[in-house]
Amino acid sequence: MNHPFTNLSVVAQAVERPTFVIDKSQVMQNIERMASKAARHNLLFRPHFKTHQSAEIGQWFRDFEVKAITVSSVTMASYFAGNGWEDITIAFPLNIREIATINALATHCKINVLIDNLPAAEMLGKRATTPMGFFIEVDTGHLRSGMESSRIQQIDEVLAMAAKSRHLKFKGFLSHSGQTYASRSVDDILLRHSAAVMKMSALREHYAASCPEIIASLGDTPACSIAENFDGIDELRPGNFVFYDLMQEHLGACSRSEIAGRLLCPVVSRHLSRNEVVLYGGAVHFSKEYLLADHGKRSFGSIELCDVETGSVADEKTFVSALSQEHGMVKATFGDTRKFTIGGLTSVLPVHSCLTADLAHYYLTTTGERIEKMVF
Amino acid sequence: MNHPFTNLSVVAQAVERPTFVIDKSQVMQNIERMASKAARHNLLFRPHFKTHQSAEIGQWFRDFEVKAITVSSVTMASYFAGNGWEDITIAFPLNIREIATINALATHCKINVLIDNLPAAEMLGKRATTPMGFFIEVDTGHLRSGMESSRIQQIDEVLAMAAKSRHLKFKGFLSHSGQTYASRSVDDILLRHSAAVMKMSALREHYAASCPEIIASLGDTPACSIAENFDGIDELRPGNFVFYDLMQEHLGACSRSEIAGRLLCPVVSRHLSRNEVVLYGGAVHFSKEYLLADHGKRSFGSIELCDVETGSVADEKTFVSALSQEHGMVKATFGDTRKFTIGGLTSVLPVHSCLTADLAHYYLTTTGERIEKMVF
Repeated sequence: MNHPFTNLSVVAQAVERPTFVIDKSQVMQNIERMASKAARHNLLFRPHFKTHQSAEIGQWFRDFEVKAITVSSVTMASYFAGNGWEDITIAFPLNIREIATINALATHCKINVLIDNLPAAEMLGKRATTPMGFFIEVDTGHLRSGMESSRIQQIDEVLAMAAKSRHLKFKGFLSHSGQTYASRSVDDILLRHSAAVMKMSALREHYAASCPEIIASLGDTPACSIAENFDGIDELRPGNFVFYDLMQEHLGACSRSEIAGRLLCPVVSRHLSRNEVVLYGGAVHFSKEYLLADHGKRSFGSIELCDVETGSVADEKTFVSALSQEHGMVKATFGDTRKFTIGGLTSVLPVHSCLTADLAHYYLTTTGERIEKMVF
Repeated sequence: MNHPFTNLSVVAQAVERPTFVIDKSQVMQNIERMASKAARHNLLFRPHFKTHQSAEIGQWFRDFEVKAITVSSVTMASYFAGNGWEDITIAFPLNIREIATINALATHCKINVLIDNLPAAEMLGKRATTPMGFFIEVDTGHLRSGMESSRIQQIDEVLAMAAKSRHLKFKGFLSHSGQTYASRSVDDILLRHSAAVMKMSALREHYAASCPEIIASLGDTPACSIAENFDGIDELRPGNFVFYDLMQEHLGACSRSEIAGRLLCPVVSRHLSRNEVVLYGGAVHFSKEYLLADHGKRSFGSIELCDVETGSVADEKTFVSALSQEHGMVKATFGDTRKFTIGGLTSVLPVHSCLTADLAHYYLTTTGERIEKMVF
């Protein structure tokens, strides 16, 4: 193997604590692939920056002509607006309590917010003091936020309410089809995605006469990675693809080699009698997201290298089996247990890179460059 | 009800985003109760500060004559050393990669580290440049870190190795009996705890002749809260009790009224058709810790007040059923769904206050005071 993550011994010397390491060349490939796909389908590419939360990584997207972004909070919108981004969709149901910040942002940026209910439309209409865009968030089957796509009457009411404000401009329909994450196969992802595409394009069609400029925006990483049907869709907003992770691999949305981040963790204890190893790397570094691995047990991460310095590759069956606040427990094969060295570093593939990256205070690249990110 | 958490309307006005609110008077009662218990049993009280991670809350412990503390990382030791604490046990297996910081800390503080294996003892002996204490970490049944308590020969080897360094002073045996967290009843906690107490006191006895000054230190919050048998134990190190949480209540370690923290979350979406409410409050605010509630479903938090302003109390069956990065899904009873107000705030009892507090950037007290904490 000649992958950058197998040659971490130089970077490892600088690592004292659990550290999220990214392979910039793989990140660039992941961005390039998604940007090309959007271009090929004639779609606007408005990547979600909630995964990396980094001004510097944001700049890497500029190479691919990205000018508009998505974020998941007003705080994140402020951070990226302060770092040169001028067209930002806050893809989270309007939190009216942050209206002062939203108004301030909208004075010097194009800001889009999401509305999925009448009271929010009413409050926004009354309290918006600056022109801003809004999307109607649509639920295409995820059952999280969003208006049910068939409820035209309710949507009309929201649009009528918003139209009372001269500051609010209707931008279109937006959905996060997170139901793809519950898929059991690639075919299942494609089915769920196609159903969402149909609902979104039908909605856009319905309003095409009265609102010819509106768009339909979709954004989950699984479907954006594997689907080719975007009929009637105008914009893609995936985020996780920048790093990918075990969950995406498990879904079939990426290959192992496309996962562009690892958590490097110091090895602090080893228990040969039970083939277990203790890492400095716990819930405050990984988050407690897990997946049910093929062996039927909860996995909080897969080990790639038992020891980064010697480059000893772990067996597929060696995994992070439990996390407490700062401890990570590794359940290793008999052979692997002895490959871990007290005082050494191990590399772990994260289950959910968005949450693991959120907990990082900065990133390190495989070539040793420190990448700052939003800390809060 | 006249509890401070039912009168949050003043504090609520200042809350724009998910905010961890604590009731200082309840925190003080929780500290007082634990400090009194330690005194009653003639035990040193060395509280774990990993839960609150706040210099200011640390000061509150001074009222109870606390002079020595426990932390879970070298980073946290540096933070509290910088805030006036001079006697700190880093209750995590030695991470030799941080030896430079540990040495620096030990020049102006009493620092104790944990050793649970021979290579760590050897590396510490070679690289410690300042006097410091060490505990042998003992596994009394948790199967996480620590040496198995019956392995006297291995313990002797570690002690012999450490004795080669003039800087290392053997302080005694320390265990985190985290196995109490897997208990199914209060009796079960007491049984597990008593077994741990016996192992620890036997070890201390075994070494009493050669090392008369050593101590035995225990620390899990469930047992420290409910047990009365500490025969042969010298020191208590609980941490979670400062705030408590649903997990501790579930275990029988505290009552609901002793839980001293709530996450206040803005209500952003409401779905009457399925009795669900969407909160601004997700995995990056709560962590993804859950417990299996009485209704058999995973609960990521219990709702206390559906709407903080009106003080409308939630049904016991209304709970946080799912979390994504920023969204919290509430599954509400039919009656409760209508009590939530878009733009209002709801108060949530956290499942695991250590992880929820770790994700907070500061705390707010029920009287509106802002409490700073370690951010990293």
